[in-house]
Amino acid sequence: MTSESINFSEKFERLPPGDYATGIIATMNDYEFKVVRFKGDFVWHSHSTTDEAFIIIEGVMVMNFRDRKVEVRPGEMIIVPKGIEHKPSSSEGYKATLIEPEGVPNTGGVESDMAITTIEWV
Amino acid sequence: MTSESINFSEKFERLPPGDYATGIIATMNDYEFKVVRFKGDFVWHSHSTTDEAFIIIEGVMVMNFRDRKVEVRPGEMIIVPKGIEHKPSSSEGYKATLIEPEGVPNTGGVESDMAITTIEWV
Repeated sequence: MTSESINFSEKFERLPPGDYATGIIATMNDYEFKVVRFKGDFVWHSHSTTDEAFIIIEGVMVMNFRDRKVEVRPGEMIIVPKGIEHKPSSSEGYKATLIEPEGVPNTGGVESDMAITTIEWV
Repeated sequence: MTSESINFSEKFERLPPGDYATGIIATMNDYEFKVVRFKGDFVWHSHSTTDEAFIIIEGVMVMNFRDRKVEVRPGEMIIVPKGIEHKPSSSEGYKATLIEPEGVPNTGGVESDMAITTIEWV
């Protein structure tokens, strides 16, 4: 079966309100593409089994690492390497596309009120 | 080791001239992110082992399938499913980010003057 185009703006509009919302928009083999809207300070965590890709669509994401910070702006992406502690943050908020294998826990297993056990399709 | 942000515009500027140019900009596990600049009619092909993701940055890509065409515009993406024949085309040209496993032949093994055996980092 062939496939349709996927419009990021339309997908962001389908996310629930709040400072943190995410939804699945596509799969590629056993990887997922998600849209993420986030404002605030995420929780420090790492993913022991996989790298993770963020593509920024709107706003500015500060990717905090233990030794430094990297600003990522619209038209830019960043790969967070496997096993590296990181904490996304944004005072104004950002919208991003996140790409990683299916079923990766969003907080890397760290207990937090930001932990989401099941991410829905939007 | 932590990582840097990657700017798509800067990467497109590093591509060689011509109607078709592509280069690797990042890896995520055993997947590659590439930038692709293309104008014209690609060759009909499929990839027997993998899906393939295109995110359009500039211009309009027409993704031809055997039964229909899908236009993909800036702010949109499309997944080409494994094994499905497809042919990207664009009269005005497009710039895209392509995501797929490392080492996937760009023409799916079809002989063509568009076949590229080694894609370089940019």
